[in-house]
Amino acid sequence: MTVRIQPATPADVPMILTLIRELAEFERLLHEVTATEAQVREGLFGPRPSAEVAMARIGDEVAGFALYFHNFSTFLAKPGIYLEDLYVRQQFRGQGCGEALLKHLARTALERGCGRLEWSVLDWNQRAIDFYKSLGATPMNEWTTYRVTGEALRTLGA
Amino acid sequence: MTVRIQPATPADVPMILTLIRELAEFERLLHEVTATEAQVREGLFGPRPSAEVAMARIGDEVAGFALYFHNFSTFLAKPGIYLEDLYVRQQFRGQGCGEALLKHLARTALERGCGRLEWSVLDWNQRAIDFYKSLGATPMNEWTTYRVTGEALRTLGA
Repeated sequence: MTVRIQPATPADVPMILTLIRELAEFERLLHEVTATEAQVREGLFGPRPSAEVAMARIGDEVAGFALYFHNFSTFLAKPGIYLEDLYVRQQFRGQGCGEALLKHLARTALERGCGRLEWSVLDWNQRAIDFYKSLGATPMNEWTTYRVTGEALRTLGA
Repeated sequence: MTVRIQPATPADVPMILTLIRELAEFERLLHEVTATEAQVREGLFGPRPSAEVAMARIGDEVAGFALYFHNFSTFLAKPGIYLEDLYVRQQFRGQGCGEALLKHLARTALERGCGRLEWSVLDWNQRAIDFYKSLGATPMNEWTTYRVTGEALRTLGA
């Protein structure tokens, strides 16, 4: 069956939240998910959208999704695309959904004059790492991301 | 002398490019910088800005800057702030500019309802790492960023 990639619509919001939760479960991080349908709708389709979603479908079924937004490279002084989440449901793996989603994002990046497509991978997800390297992605091994959230963010911003 | 943090204006663009180049030199990556003043102006002050800049000044002098944009957490379904570049010029270090810039961003994140403030650090920059940890930042040690750029991006998007 052919994989079809299409921009998400507001009707996809409940399914997107389901997929976010499935992905979190796979990443062993379900306890961190507080997202609600209303918040997802606001973030994707509100007056000031923060992100975009591409849906992957096989036949009539949702097989996976990619959620992304623009970032900015100071060295290139050009926007880039940052892929926050890429997820293919277990029963649809091995059918080219992940590659179709990444190709769609690379095409979108080129159409929009972006210089880069980036995303982050959990170090134990070897299957994903092998797949990304096969597509020409380079690991930024020298860099570590730092995060301030929750109480630490409130303290720092007080 | 007191550190003052202010949003950049179009008049700051030449200085911002100077600072980007100084930062790249510090990171041993100057050969990667292709940014021009026109591109920086477009990215920050064009019809569709991709990023924002906060300037740090001591007296009349520019001491440093922070360039940031919004990202999006799917688990929280909330925007966050991603700090792409933080730089304090050598002669102004140790006077609280970095902390003032980070506090400004944390405050901005809270005002805008963001759930996170994030940035990436080169693994050999121990001075920066110690400083960030002292502010309550947590390293995302399990994650590695992957990047597709240049010819690999054109191939993937073809």
